[in-house]
Amino acid sequence: MDSNQFAIAIMAAGKGTRLKSKRPKVLHEIGGRALLLHVIAAAETAVPAGHIFCIIGHEADRVRTAVASTGVQFVLQPEQRGTGHALQMLKADFELSGRPIPQHLLVLSGDVPLIRPETIAAVRDTHLREHAAMTILTAVPADPTGYGRVIRASPDKPDKPEVTAIVEQKSLRPDQLTAPEINSGIYCFETAALFARLDALTTNNAHGEFYLTDIAAMLVAEGKRVVAVKADSVDEVLGANTIAEMMHLDAAMRLATAHRLMAAGITIFRPETCVIDSTVTVGPDTVIEPYVQLLGATRIGSDSRIRSYSVIQNSQLGDNVLVRNGCILDTAEVANNAILGPYAHLRPESKIGDGAHVGNFVETKKATLGKGSKANHLNYLGDTVIGAGVNIGAGAITCNYDGVHKHLTTISDGAFIGSDSTLVAPVTIGAGSYIAAGSSITEDVPDGALALGRSRQTNKPGWVAARKATAKQNTN
Amino acid sequence: MDSNQFAIAIMAAGKGTRLKSKRPKVLHEIGGRALLLHVIAAAETAVPAGHIFCIIGHEADRVRTAVASTGVQFVLQPEQRGTGHALQMLKADFELSGRPIPQHLLVLSGDVPLIRPETIAAVRDTHLREHAAMTILTAVPADPTGYGRVIRASPDKPDKPEVTAIVEQKSLRPDQLTAPEINSGIYCFETAALFARLDALTTNNAHGEFYLTDIAAMLVAEGKRVVAVKADSVDEVLGANTIAEMMHLDAAMRLATAHRLMAAGITIFRPETCVIDSTVTVGPDTVIEPYVQLLGATRIGSDSRIRSYSVIQNSQLGDNVLVRNGCILDTAEVANNAILGPYAHLRPESKIGDGAHVGNFVETKKATLGKGSKANHLNYLGDTVIGAGVNIGAGAITCNYDGVHKHLTTISDGAFIGSDSTLVAPVTIGAGSYIAAGSSITEDVPDGALALGRSRQTNKPGWVAARKATAKQNTN
Amino acid sequence: MDSNQFAIAIMAAGKGTRLKSKRPKVLHEIGGRALLLHVIAAAETAVPAGHIFCIIGHEADRVRTAVASTGVQFVLQPEQRGTGHALQMLKADFELSGRPIPQHLLVLSGDVPLIRPETIAAVRDTHLREHAAMTILTAVPADPTGYGRVIRASPDKPDKPEVTAIVEQKSLRPDQLTAPEINSGIYCFETAALFARLDALTTNNAHGEFYLTDIAAMLVAEGKRVVAVKADSVDEVLGANTIAEMMHLDAAMRLATAHRLMAAGITIFRPETCVIDSTVTVGPDTVIEPYVQLLGATRIGSDSRIRSYSVIQNSQLGDNVLVRNGCILDTAEVANNAILGPYAHLRPESKIGDGAHVGNFVETKKATLGKGSKANHLNYLGDTVIGAGVNIGAGAITCNYDGVHKHLTTISDGAFIGSDSTLVAPVTIGAGSYIAAGSSITEDVPDGALALGRSRQTNKPGWVAARKATAKQNTN
Repeated sequence: MDSNQFAIAIMAAGKGTRLKSKRPKVLHEIGGRALLLHVIAAAETAVPAGHIFCIIGHEADRVRTAVASTGVQFVLQPEQRGTGHALQMLKADFELSGRPIPQHLLVLSGDVPLIRPETIAAVRDTHLREHAAMTILTAVPADPTGYGRVIRASPDKPDKPEVTAIVEQKSLRPDQLTAPEINSGIYCFETAALFARLDALTTNNAHGEFYLTDIAAMLVAEGKRVVAVKADSVDEVLGANTIAEMMHLDAAMRLATAHRLMAAGITIFRPETCVIDSTVTVGPDTVIEPYVQLLGATRIGSDSRIRSYSVIQNSQLGDNVLVRNGCILDTAEVANNAILGPYAHLRPESKIGDGAHVGNFVETKKATLGKGSKANHLNYLGDTVIGAGVNIGAGAITCNYDGVHKHLTTISDGAFIGSDSTLVAPVTIGAGSYIAAGSSITEDVPDGALALGRSRQTNKPGWVAARKATAKQNTN
Repeated sequence: MDSNQFAIAIMAAGKGTRLKSKRPKVLHEIGGRALLLHVIAAAETAVPAGHIFCIIGHEADRVRTAVASTGVQFVLQPEQRGTGHALQMLKADFELSGRPIPQHLLVLSGDVPLIRPETIAAVRDTHLREHAAMTILTAVPADPTGYGRVIRASPDKPDKPEVTAIVEQKSLRPDQLTAPEINSGIYCFETAALFARLDALTTNNAHGEFYLTDIAAMLVAEGKRVVAVKADSVDEVLGANTIAEMMHLDAAMRLATAHRLMAAGITIFRPETCVIDSTVTVGPDTVIEPYVQLLGATRIGSDSRIRSYSVIQNSQLGDNVLVRNGCILDTAEVANNAILGPYAHLRPESKIGDGAHVGNFVETKKATLGKGSKANHLNYLGDTVIGAGVNIGAGAITCNYDGVHKHLTTISDGAFIGSDSTLVAPVTIGAGSYIAAGSSITEDVPDGALALGRSRQTNKPGWVAARKATAKQNTN
Repeated sequence: MDSNQFAIAIMAAGKGTRLKSKRPKVLHEIGGRALLLHVIAAAETAVPAGHIFCIIGHEADRVRTAVASTGVQFVLQPEQRGTGHALQMLKADFELSGRPIPQHLLVLSGDVPLIRPETIAAVRDTHLREHAAMTILTAVPADPTGYGRVIRASPDKPDKPEVTAIVEQKSLRPDQLTAPEINSGIYCFETAALFARLDALTTNNAHGEFYLTDIAAMLVAEGKRVVAVKADSVDEVLGANTIAEMMHLDAAMRLATAHRLMAAGITIFRPETCVIDSTVTVGPDTVIEPYVQLLGATRIGSDSRIRSYSVIQNSQLGDNVLVRNGCILDTAEVANNAILGPYAHLRPESKIGDGAHVGNFVETKKATLGKGSKANHLNYLGDTVIGAGVNIGAGAITCNYDGVHKHLTTISDGAFIGSDSTLVAPVTIGAGSYIAAGSSITEDVPDGALALGRSRQTNKPGWVAARKATAKQNTN
């Protein structure tokens, strides 16, 4: 599409009263992303972000902030007085800014998130091919009752797309009651034809709003060409008006992703129970157990297995990785052959080496674990660089915070960190050294040295009996 | 309802043989509550608990104990010889106790848990309006085959509720085979009319039991008025005869709760996967992820987020609280802006302050955490009062139990508790004080003091090589 | 079945191209077991393993290894040139080995996992009763379009099983288009009749393969008896050609198991969400919450409760056991009245005694916990024998590994192990002894003794203020 020829307006000013929510409707999320971001992503397949104009109004600042990173333009509609009014605001914005007016304008709804790039392209192509002043996207639901109907000039001739009217349910003539095609609210206009008529819109209707559908009537009356193009499915043009409807779209979107992955050789047990973002990639022969969540920019290699109840977000996992039950990964990197969990928690900047193990109830943060190293039980590893072949005993902890600053713990190749030892950063543990269990380590340990930082044991025989005797005496 | 006029009997004596369970049928649970408790709750909307009579028999003591706290009355039916026999026992109990006999008696089934207060009221109102001796609650299932049928005098006139007979399936005349209305087993009687006829019941039937349905025949034969009232839905009058059927009711009940919350502005992803008791309240704009369980008297504020696999029971959470994955809360209080988890375990009498953090693999019990305080990694905090702005290092533990008694740990505002330190209660840590990592703290620490309770480190260079040499020598 | 009379061939050589997987199709898993293992298990109900011949080809070694423990025989089909070719290989194998040729040969598909023993028996019995040369298992799907159709001589006479032809969809005559019976690809042959005709098969067909279905045409042409027997359900004869179809079979198989358990008195909330292998046994009145997984040879007693998100594999649990949320058990034994979790991790050779408790964030491995003993918080217990009535404090750890060997920790009855103590194995803790919190224990402790292995605390008053002053000075 020549981007000087086309721009896209997205209606995003509404409140969504039926949601009973303070959050603006277009910022409610499905498939891990705000409704409006889904629409912008589809629009960006047709024109650059700079040619996309979001008409915002209700909680305008919140909407603007939430989608600013996409690079789209914003037009403020301070009061919400209808779809026609929204485009009056857009026209005013073009006039004020002196911005060149695009030849054609596509209008999308910010709360119709399933719209596909293919459908946007079909609307544009029909519009151009038919040299239309206005092109209307329609759909044919099982039961059209209640929807505004698009009336064709030649309903029996599918190749004749001329439209004679858009008629609301209550204004349908008896012979129009069964008209099957509904108005999606998605249009393409010849911009000049649209802008020339916006000021002629009136609010002579039940809701007292300026309706864009009235433009179709004006154009037809003036003998301009108005045409229709049918969407392949109804789902992609229907908005979500209640939270329950959104949840339904969310589940459908994620299930579609799971089926796409299965078709590519990934085994997903109980696919409808997994939560997989459309942005996730997984290699063949990886097995995903029920109740797994794969989110954001996550990439998983081949022949890996992700066990149930694990949640992996924005992370990269190699081949032949085993993630046991209940692991939580956020922005982590895990090399081939590593084994995690159950209940390992990898926080951002965790880098787990080839064949390394991170076991149960272990938390890592800004932590590198070298090839084949193991931290299998009840560890906290924060701000640390750990070499290869290191063994971290049960309960060993890096003390990275002194109450004021965070410090680094360096553990060199082949070191053995005894159970329950405490490494007080900044500190460096030498290669092949040995930290005795239960030690507090506050100073660097040379390569190959034994470090001890614990007290000698003393036994006091008979102490328990004596304590009981004393206790008895005290209570007498 | 004038409670001297009305009483309610609940049939709760049966065994439920088809369940193959030692547990009495009415104590099986759906929606987090025994079947009988659902019925009692509905009954209590019509009369005070003291006017509700549970007829118990099979495992009577167990049933009595399970519902005693509701304050209902109990009547023992030692042998289970039919519904008529159950009310014979009730009559005998009234006579023995000299208790005043209510003018009307509603009869409910303890294993029909979905009965609604509105339906109970409709039975009562019809009964009074029609001046009936007996009022029968009916329903119209898709297929009535197999059920006892209620035959109306004027089936074509919905406003004529007179009943001529209750007929079992196998006794239906050919012209009655398609009679659509089934007997729910829920009735309202003029008590005097009922009690006068109970002794006339016989066991001349296939099961050799006394059947309450025979009362209808007697009344009709004597020209007394028997009427029917139809329930809005079949579900609420059908009992659960198998565990699979109960599980179906359970899922339906909880899904209805999820939909009610969504309609009030709460986002619940995959609502059918969540387990939410009907007693739970949630504020608008809170987001509930899949596989979350909200149980009992839990109350959650607005703008909070509960991540997957968390189970929250009898707890109160404020606004803008983040509960990460896999948290378990039982009878805890969590103030606004707090962050929990993942895998935090808050046991009873945990009180988490405004903006406080409880992190991964942390357990709290009888623990107060002040405003903005943090316990983020691998802690056990039991019997402790922690002030504001305190930092609890990784692996730090309160030793609240000496083998005989539990003792209190007090940590004052702004204290810094080093990682892996051990606080041996009873002990008080002063405001702004600093506990060195790895310390065992057995004595009080003054405000602003440093406390150390660990050994100095010693390094033994060359020890690892020497050990290997010795080991080699020993194996030679 | 006289095993000298019957043998079973299982087709297991194919690649399953549509799966897009390196793993051979018959090794994909449903219900916790490879497809081929399901078929072998059904076949073993009819003949001993030694009479079952798996025809393997694609990734033959991998398939052989995966099912070798069943004791079946293997025949290699190096190239996959059709079902007829597979049996040519079997014939050659019989001839080469001089193995006695069975009178009858049943042919099953390794990727049709739901085949039931009853159906195999029905094929065999029909085959013998009808003195057939070839018996074809058929099924009647809702829509037979696309399947090869089995044409009967007397379609109107159900007791006349003679078959006149097997016809591919594209070769059906107009009057055969609605023929309802499809060919399952499961057959029984008189072995001599089959083997005599295998060499006459040709590859004159679209795929250039040797088709077993051509044998039927030969036999009919020669006046031999070919008969059909109908399967009770379509599901059991349909293979899974895509991963999505396999996942569907997996869910169906596990749901059937859940329903079988519910019918036996086990309560399973949301049965469709649980993952229960068909090999698992559970006693009545045990309650299983949603999202539980019971795998392998797991056996659970009566009156127990398994809370959500727990995964129990190859483990034995007694009566009245409570498994709280998120526990992971692998090859563990848990006695009556024990309480586990939440988030307890029992690894192999964990033996938990009567009434013992294993609490949150606790890992056990080769660990025995005696009657009534408790390890409730943040413990690692590996290679240890713990007696009765022992209390293991929060964070206490057994140090079982010295970097070279694993050693045993023995804790005798009634010992009290203080919080955060470190038991350095090999070490023995005497009966009734008391380990002070925070101690490192490296030597044996006598019965009834107090053992201390920690430093005395020192307080440095004013230290925090001094540090701040220094820090300020340094930055000035």
